[in-house]
Amino acid sequence: MGKLNIDGDINNLKFSESGLIPVVVQDVKTRDVLMLAYANEEAIRKTFETGYAHYWSRSRKKLWKKGETSGNVQKVISVYADCDRDAIIYVVEQNGKACHTGEWTCFHNKLWGEDL
Amino acid sequence: MGKLNIDGDINNLKFSESGLIPVVVQDVKTRDVLMLAYANEEAIRKTFETGYAHYWSRSRKKLWKKGETSGNVQKVISVYADCDRDAIIYVVEQNGKACHTGEWTCFHNKLWGEDL
Repeated sequence: MGKLNIDGDINNLKFSESGLIPVVVQDVKTRDVLMLAYANEEAIRKTFETGYAHYWSRSRKKLWKKGETSGNVQKVISVYADCDRDAIIYVVEQNGKACHTGEWTCFHNKLWGEDL
Repeated sequence: MGKLNIDGDINNLKFSESGLIPVVVQDVKTRDVLMLAYANEEAIRKTFETGYAHYWSRSRKKLWKKGETSGNVQKVISVYADCDRDAIIYVVEQNGKACHTGEWTCFHNKLWGEDL
C-alpha cells in the first residue's frame, strides 16, 4: 500500500501559508470529479491511517471525516500528488452522494458550454 | 453555449482575497484529472470568449493561455462551478500532454494506495 514513505511523501508536499493543500476528489468508478476540498498534514495522515477521506474544514476550522454524520463516506483507493506537489488527488469509492445539497457531485452548476 | 449569463455567473463566483479561484481540469475523453490551476475573472472571460483554457499564473503573475508556447492547448467543452461556487472545473480536450514534465497528467506522483 506504499505506506513506507508516508513521512517523506507528506514532508515533500507544499502546503499553503495556512498549512493547507487543495484536494481534488474523483470517484474511481464513474471517474466524475466530486469535489474540491482542503487538507492539512493531519488530515492526510488520518486518511492514510484509516483509508477514509479526511479534510480540514475551513468554515468549521476542524478536522473533518467526510460523511461522519451523513454516512456519505469516501473509501480512498489512491492518493497522487501533482508535479509541483502543491495539489493532491484522492481517488475514492463514494458512498451515497458527495454533495451536501444531495447532488452526486458538487460540480453541478453549469456556467458555460455543453451539458455533460 | 450558455453565454447569455456569463456576467451573472462570473459575478456569482467566490474568488479568494487575491482574486483567484481554483480550476480542476479534466479530459473529456479519458476523464483523467489533468491539473489543478487558478483563474482570475479575466482568465475565465478569456476562456469563455475563445473556447480555450486560460489561467492566472501565480509564479509568473500573468494571464496564461495553456499551451501558448508548447502547443498543448486545451479546448474547453464545459465549465461547471461547485455548490458553494468557490471552485470550478474545465472539462477539456487536451492537445498533447497536460504536464510540463512531459507526462499526460500533472497528477503522476503516487503517495499512497493502489496504482491506477
